[in-house]
Amino acid sequence: MAYDQNNIFAKILRGEMPAQKFYEDELTIAILDVMPQSEGHSLVIPKCAAENIFELQPEYASAVMRSGQLVARTVRDVFQADGITLMQFNGVEAGQTVFHFHLHVIPRYAGRPLRSHGRGMADPGVLAGQAARLRAALGS
Amino acid sequence: MAYDQNNIFAKILRGEMPAQKFYEDELTIAILDVMPQSEGHSLVIPKCAAENIFELQPEYASAVMRSGQLVARTVRDVFQADGITLMQFNGVEAGQTVFHFHLHVIPRYAGRPLRSHGRGMADPGVLAGQAARLRAALGS
Repeated sequence: MAYDQNNIFAKILRGEMPAQKFYEDELTIAILDVMPQSEGHSLVIPKCAAENIFELQPEYASAVMRSGQLVARTVRDVFQADGITLMQFNGVEAGQTVFHFHLHVIPRYAGRPLRSHGRGMADPGVLAGQAARLRAALGS
Repeated sequence: MAYDQNNIFAKILRGEMPAQKFYEDELTIAILDVMPQSEGHSLVIPKCAAENIFELQPEYASAVMRSGQLVARTVRDVFQADGITLMQFNGVEAGQTVFHFHLHVIPRYAGRPLRSHGRGMADPGVLAGQAARLRAALGS
C-alpha cells in the first residue's frame, strides 16, 4: 500500500489538524492520544512519510525510540504512573488503524485496567491541561 | 529495584543459559521467545544492565529499535506474517516479568489470535528449526 499523504498524522505534522503536541525535535513529535487507553497515553510520531516500521529510515527508528524514552520518563513522572507499556502496530492484522508509523507510550496504573482503544474521545480541555503539564515538565 | 544480575536474559547474554539466538551485533542480540504468542515471536535484548526503558542508555535505545526493525522485516519475510506488533513492558504493573529490558517482536497472522504469554513452552526442536531459518535469511 502506498503511503497516504492525507492520513491524520500527516495532517497533524503539516499543521492542518489540531493536536495536543507536547514535545518536538528535529525528527519526531509527541502528542496525546485523543482516545486514550489510560491517563497520559501518548504517541511518538516521526516526521517522515513512513507507513510502518518496514518503511522507516534507520535514523528515524533511532529517533523514535529516544523520544519514546523521554516521553516514557516524563509521562511516568507527571502522572505518577506505576509502569509504562510501549506498543507499535504494523499492518491491519496487527491492529494498525492510522497508516503513519507511531509508537504508543501507555502509562499503567495499579488496579486500573486499560480502556479499549478507540472507545470515545477524551475531553479536549482535559487533554489540553495534561499537555500543558507535560510541556512544563519538559521545559518545552 | 536494583538490576538483578541473575535474571534469565543476563544469563543468556553471559552464555550461562541456552537460547535460540539468531542475530547479534555489538549492542544487541535477538532470540526466539520460548513461550511464543505466535510463530516467530522474537525478543531483542540489549547487552547492558538495564531493567527497563528508564535505565537504558540512549545508544542502546537506538540500537534496540534498529535491531527490532531488522528482526521485524526478517520475521515477516521468513514466516510470511501479515503484520508485526512491537510490545515493550516496563514495571510489574505494565506486565513485565523478566527485569532486563526486552522488546517483543510479535508476528500477526490473519485469523489467528495471539496466544497468551507464558502459557506453555514451545517445542525446542521447532524453535531450533525456526532460528536456523532466521539465521539463513539474515546470512548470520
